[in-house]
Amino acid sequence: MKITALEAIPFAIPYRKPLTFASGEVRAAEHVLVRVHTDEGVVGVAEAPPRPFTYGETQDGILAVIRQIFAPQIVGLPLTEREVVTTRLARTVGNPTAKAAVDMAIWDALGRTLGLSVSAMLGGYTDRMRVSHMLGFDTPEAMVAEAEHINARFGITTFKVKVGRRPVTRDTAVVRALRERFGDTVDLYIDGNRGWTAAESLRAMQEMADLGLIFAEELCPADDVLGRRWLVSRLDVPFIADESVPTPADITREVLGGSATAISIKTARTGFTGSQRAHHLAEGLGLEVVMGNQIDGQIGTACAVAFGSAFELTSRRAGELSNFLDMSDDLLATPLHISDGQLQVPAGPGLGIDVDPDKLRHYRTDH
Amino acid sequence: MKITALEAIPFAIPYRKPLTFASGEVRAAEHVLVRVHTDEGVVGVAEAPPRPFTYGETQDGILAVIRQIFAPQIVGLPLTEREVVTTRLARTVGNPTAKAAVDMAIWDALGRTLGLSVSAMLGGYTDRMRVSHMLGFDTPEAMVAEAEHINARFGITTFKVKVGRRPVTRDTAVVRALRERFGDTVDLYIDGNRGWTAAESLRAMQEMADLGLIFAEELCPADDVLGRRWLVSRLDVPFIADESVPTPADITREVLGGSATAISIKTARTGFTGSQRAHHLAEGLGLEVVMGNQIDGQIGTACAVAFGSAFELTSRRAGELSNFLDMSDDLLATPLHISDGQLQVPAGPGLGIDVDPDKLRHYRTDH
Repeated sequence: MKITALEAIPFAIPYRKPLTFASGEVRAAEHVLVRVHTDEGVVGVAEAPPRPFTYGETQDGILAVIRQIFAPQIVGLPLTEREVVTTRLARTVGNPTAKAAVDMAIWDALGRTLGLSVSAMLGGYTDRMRVSHMLGFDTPEAMVAEAEHINARFGITTFKVKVGRRPVTRDTAVVRALRERFGDTVDLYIDGNRGWTAAESLRAMQEMADLGLIFAEELCPADDVLGRRWLVSRLDVPFIADESVPTPADITREVLGGSATAISIKTARTGFTGSQRAHHLAEGLGLEVVMGNQIDGQIGTACAVAFGSAFELTSRRAGELSNFLDMSDDLLATPLHISDGQLQVPAGPGLGIDVDPDKLRHYRTDH
Repeated sequence: MKITALEAIPFAIPYRKPLTFASGEVRAAEHVLVRVHTDEGVVGVAEAPPRPFTYGETQDGILAVIRQIFAPQIVGLPLTEREVVTTRLARTVGNPTAKAAVDMAIWDALGRTLGLSVSAMLGGYTDRMRVSHMLGFDTPEAMVAEAEHINARFGITTFKVKVGRRPVTRDTAVVRALRERFGDTVDLYIDGNRGWTAAESLRAMQEMADLGLIFAEELCPADDVLGRRWLVSRLDVPFIADESVPTPADITREVLGGSATAISIKTARTGFTGSQRAHHLAEGLGLEVVMGNQIDGQIGTACAVAFGSAFELTSRRAGELSNFLDMSDDLLATPLHISDGQLQVPAGPGLGIDVDPDKLRHYRTDH
């Protein structure tokens, strides 16, 4: 069960349409495939999505930190010494998706070695999650049409609406149009990606007071420290901290400081080992949690559903598991499938997924 | 005054001896030289020191973010639109030394264009700073000998002692030996680089209660949120937050949360534009500040003294400006010189320094 090699392979898969939101835009999935090899010939996989506007990582930076720093630190360790791996990776600050992918690839390899699914190793609460679909910036008509399509084709009934445009009525009109079209058959919440000020956020929330939102996420920057506390103290719904809580210590600071009342857990940034810590801390603090999406491909989505379905708290709410639908292709031999508004954990040991060697050859960008 | 090109050049200069402290070790200055070129033929310079164990940056990661993200964002802007540059760089999260070097190279180019020193442009309070010298891990005898050498040769009378080893008596013995050797002719403070727990930190500070320390810096991790608050509330000296406050918002959070009562300003991580903000915020909050050292080379040290000497608050205390003494060589045509315990701001427009083309050719690692 010894780790013999750690690979980091850049690849690029185009999106069908660019995804736009308050903090950025994504046109292609230029991710990094991470593979952990063991002395028994087992290979564990995961993917790291570079998000310079969220975590400061670039594709080249992820390759450098994995190949130059992480690989020498963990090659030779047994798969079971995950806390040793975690401690060594923690010597390097930041680089959340690079660390998370290494961690998750190790869990995948361990599960394959033991013949157990990662989800079972983590907690095994259930075998599926309800899916929440994210609606990127567009006109109210186009966003309602997208929701209708997603609802009809995949049975999804929870929508996260990207907001943060100015004036705020551009976005509140979208939420109102969605509620008018779907009535109470759907759950709606909003994500500002830090696009509004605290005052704009409050005005928007007041305008939408009759629309039954279940959450509001990162409406204004956590770095507007006092403004954000003022906003959060005035809201009637849980305020989700997402990019402002990349670590458990950030959860403690933001929640105790009054800047958040719920958190998003993303396996793409905290892996399985760190997501357990975030989950257990949130549960201990009495917070609601949502499984978030780092604009993951299918590998990352398989990781998110494996974790989210493992615990009661994370599977209580629909998880954000559908961003991969916008990609023109993916690396998996057997694609993920959303139906009846749900995504099943892929069956089989580890993550239950396999990378298609032809697809990897086609999309990798390192030769 | 238009920016026509932004260069990032990796270089490596060996240290005379490796520098060791609680969060890491440095054997060579593998930094990135940043050059901003303008349409008038002016070239501004600065350097970015990759510190994976402090900020998560690698040399390759810095090259990637500057060349792929920052250069396209700022080429074409006039040097005077520094707030536009700042806003664009801020779209990328983290990457503090990469951003800081771009910012400082622009200030250097602007000063050269206007015939004004950066220090004068910033505030022009004085033309020099007293120097504080950092003592890395060794035996009490060796550290006292190093202090004697530095004191005799450069006239330096302020020492920052690296601590964070176990048991704490390994470090408290050093501080005691220094105080016994120098009496009250020197100022002493300690820097734990997050090496101790909160309880170890308090025990060490109690053991050194009679040694007249002026500050204690980052003795335990800021991420040990509640433990750190407990410690800081019990100390009789200002507790300096350094790597835990890379941004103004972090200063606000840590200080209002009770995790720090003073801050270190490092031009290497906040540049001139961000250091002004950190300084003005700290001054407004009524905090003591120290000009810190990111294990800077001479270019970085010229930046730190330019900033520190520009303001009353930053020049009140000795600045950490002597790490370059451990390097075997540097890139400057005219080396910096510490005498009478002071470092003068290099005379001349901008930073007052010039890169020696032969030295750059010798030490650059990109061809």
